[in-house]
Amino acid sequence: MTTLYPSPDDLKIRWERIQSALQQEQLDACLIASPVNLYYLTGHIFNGYAYLPQDGEPFFFVRRPADLTEKNTFSIRKPEDIPTLLKEQGIAIAKTIGLELDTLTYNEAQRLNVAFAVTAPGNASTLFRRIRMIKTPWEVEQMRQSGKKHVEVYKQIPHLFKEGMRDIDLQIAIENEMRKQGSLGIFRTFGSNMEVFMGTILTGNNTETPSPYDFSLGGKGMHPALPIGASGATITQGTTVMVDMSGNYTAYISDITRVYAWGELPDEAYRAHQVSIEMHNYFRRTAKEGASCSELYKHTLAMAEEAGLSNYFMGTKLQAKFVGHGAGLEINEPPVLMSRSNDLLQENMIIAFEPKFVLPGVGGLGIENTYLINKQGVENLTEMEETIIRL
Amino acid sequence: MTTLYPSPDDLKIRWERIQSALQQEQLDACLIASPVNLYYLTGHIFNGYAYLPQDGEPFFFVRRPADLTEKNTFSIRKPEDIPTLLKEQGIAIAKTIGLELDTLTYNEAQRLNVAFAVTAPGNASTLFRRIRMIKTPWEVEQMRQSGKKHVEVYKQIPHLFKEGMRDIDLQIAIENEMRKQGSLGIFRTFGSNMEVFMGTILTGNNTETPSPYDFSLGGKGMHPALPIGASGATITQGTTVMVDMSGNYTAYISDITRVYAWGELPDEAYRAHQVSIEMHNYFRRTAKEGASCSELYKHTLAMAEEAGLSNYFMGTKLQAKFVGHGAGLEINEPPVLMSRSNDLLQENMIIAFEPKFVLPGVGGLGIENTYLINKQGVENLTEMEETIIRL
Repeated sequence: MTTLYPSPDDLKIRWERIQSALQQEQLDACLIASPVNLYYLTGHIFNGYAYLPQDGEPFFFVRRPADLTEKNTFSIRKPEDIPTLLKEQGIAIAKTIGLELDTLTYNEAQRLNVAFAVTAPGNASTLFRRIRMIKTPWEVEQMRQSGKKHVEVYKQIPHLFKEGMRDIDLQIAIENEMRKQGSLGIFRTFGSNMEVFMGTILTGNNTETPSPYDFSLGGKGMHPALPIGASGATITQGTTVMVDMSGNYTAYISDITRVYAWGELPDEAYRAHQVSIEMHNYFRRTAKEGASCSELYKHTLAMAEEAGLSNYFMGTKLQAKFVGHGAGLEINEPPVLMSRSNDLLQENMIIAFEPKFVLPGVGGLGIENTYLINKQGVENLTEMEETIIRL
Repeated sequence: MTTLYPSPDDLKIRWERIQSALQQEQLDACLIASPVNLYYLTGHIFNGYAYLPQDGEPFFFVRRPADLTEKNTFSIRKPEDIPTLLKEQGIAIAKTIGLELDTLTYNEAQRLNVAFAVTAPGNASTLFRRIRMIKTPWEVEQMRQSGKKHVEVYKQIPHLFKEGMRDIDLQIAIENEMRKQGSLGIFRTFGSNMEVFMGTILTGNNTETPSPYDFSLGGKGMHPALPIGASGATITQGTTVMVDMSGNYTAYISDITRVYAWGELPDEAYRAHQVSIEMHNYFRRTAKEGASCSELYKHTLAMAEEAGLSNYFMGTKLQAKFVGHGAGLEINEPPVLMSRSNDLLQENMIIAFEPKFVLPGVGGLGIENTYLINKQGVENLTEMEETIIRL
C-alpha cells in the first residue's frame, strides 16, 4: 500500500458500498462529475465522469488528461459521448440514474438529464456523502497522517508569535509553517457559501463577529470580499488567540482548535476552557458505535447550561447550532452533532468535536479534536496539550 | 470614495446596466445568490439573495449577517420567505426571472423555481458575466491596486530564491510574500473544475505536464488530490521557472506571468521569449475598443507559426486554445481571445494576455500582463521588467 494512492482493494470497498446503496435507493446507476467524488472513486482528480452501475464494473470517461490506469477508461470530448460508448461496451443505459444534484450546476445537470434521457434523477450527492461518512482502512490512515502533521504545526505556534503581532501576522506565519509541512493549501468544503482561506485565527472581540459562512465561529476578515477570520487586530495581553487552521496534509482533512494566550486571563476564561475539556472527556467516555449524535449534542448543551455559560456557547451574537461534524475529503461532512440529527455513530466515522465558548472582552475558549469512532470508544487523531497554551 | 467599498454611484451604474440587460433579455427580474454576484451588486459578501427587477430598486434578503446598509434589506430564514416579503412591499412577483444557472446547484435552482413559480428560468449567470466584462471606475481602480501590489511581489522573487530550492519551496516563499503584501489568499474562479492554490510555479519538464484544470498550462502538482503546478522538482541551471501567481490584493484579480532563470539558457529559449514580447508589442499596438478577440488570437497564432514555434505554443502535450482572457472578480472572465469568439474589445474591459511557449528540457517562456482596454489603446496595469529575470 503506497501512501499517495489507495490500493485496488480499498477502492473496491468503496465501489461495493456505493453499489449496495444504489440498490437500496433503486437507482440503476450513478454518473459522477465532482472532483471530490471522482477522487473518492479512483484516487485521482480528473476532468470527466465516472459511471457506476448497480452491478458490474465502473466506467471512467476522461475529458482532460489524468494518469488514470483503471480498466474501462475512455477518452471523451463531451458528456454526450458517454451513452454511445457504453452501448459499444454492451452496457444498457440505466433507466433510473443518480446525479450529484447538490454540486452539479443547474445547466450541467440539465445537460446530463438530456444526454441520458433522465426524467427524475436521484441524488447521488446525498448518497456519496452518506457512504463517505464511513472511512476505509486507507482513508483512516490518511486521516491519521493529516492529524499528526496538524499537531506538529500547532506545536510550533508559540515559537511563531512575536509581541506586537496582529492576528493576521500570526496567521500568515502559521500558514507558512503549514505549507512547509506539506499542507496542500486548498481545502474542500461542501455547499455554495463556504469560503475561507486555510482556516481562521480569532482574537479578542473579533471572535464574536458573525460571518456569512456556516462555520462554528466567524470573524470580520481582512477585506469585505472575504468576511471571515482575522481582522488585523493586534494581539494584546489578557485576550485569547483561538487557532482553527485546516489539517489538509493529505486529501483528508483533520480539524484542530487550540487556544493560545499572551499573559494572564480572567479566571472565567480558564473556567470556560475547562468546561470544554470536560465536554471532551464526556465525549471520549460516551462516543462509540451506536451513540446518538443528537444525544451527544444535547448533553453537551446541558453541560454548558449547568456551568452557566449557555449565552457564550458556540458564539454570542450568532450561536452555531451544532457541536461537531464529520470530516474527510471535505471539512464539513455528515454526521452533524446537532439537535435534529437522526444519526447514530458508526465504526470508522470521523468526528471533529468542537465545543467552544466566546467570552466578550476575552475571546474564544475551548478545544477541537478529530476523533476516529471505534466499536468501543474513540481514538483521538489529534492528541496534544489541551489547556490554554502560553505565547 | 473609500478604497474598500464602492460608492453608491458606482453601484448604481452596475444596477442600471443589469436592468437594461434584463430588458433586452425580456426578463422581468433576476434573483442572485452567488457570493461573486452579491459582492458585485453590493460591495459585500452575505448569505442570502438580491432581487433586482427590470425597473425600480433592488431588494436584498439576508439569511446570515452582513454589515449591509442598503435600502430595502430584509432578514430571511429561507428563500421561500422572499415572495411574501416582496408582496408586502407592493412588488408583483416577476413572471420571467433570471437565475444563476451556471453556479446554482440543480437542487438550489429547483427550490427557487418552485418558490417563485418559475417554469423556464433565464440564465442570470451569463448575463452577469457579460455585464461584469466592462469595469466601472471603482473596479478599474481596484484592478490598478491589485496590479501594483502584484508587481511589487514579483520584484522580490529573485531575493526569495536560494540555490538548491525545489519549485514548491520557491512557491511557498512567494505565497508568504504575497500574504504579507495583502493577498486575500483565495481567488475566485468560474466553473466546476477550476481548482488551484494561489497560482502556479512551473520549472523544467513539469511545465509540459497536462492537468485536468482548464488553465493555460498545467503541471503535476504535489499530490494526486490537486494535480496542478509545482511538482517538487529541484530548480536547476539551464531551466526556467515560470511564475503565474494570482494578483488577489483586492477582490479584483490581476494576472502576471514572468520567467526567472538561474544561469544561462539555450539560445532558443531567449528567442521564444522574445517572440512572446513581440506578441505583446503587437497587442499593445492593436488592442483597443472595437478590436476583434478572434483576430487578436489568430494573428498571435500566426506569429508563433512564422517563428517556427507552433508546436511549443501554449503547451506541447496539451495546447491551450486561447491566448488571453478577461479578469476581475474571477480570474477567468469573458471575453476569451480564441478562434471562435465573436467579441469585440470594449472600453474598460480587462484582458490578461498570455502568449506562452514551452520548450522541452527547458521550461516555460513568455510573459503575461493585465491590460485595461481604452478607446484608443491599452493601459498596462502590470508594468515591470519583461525579459527573462536572473535568479
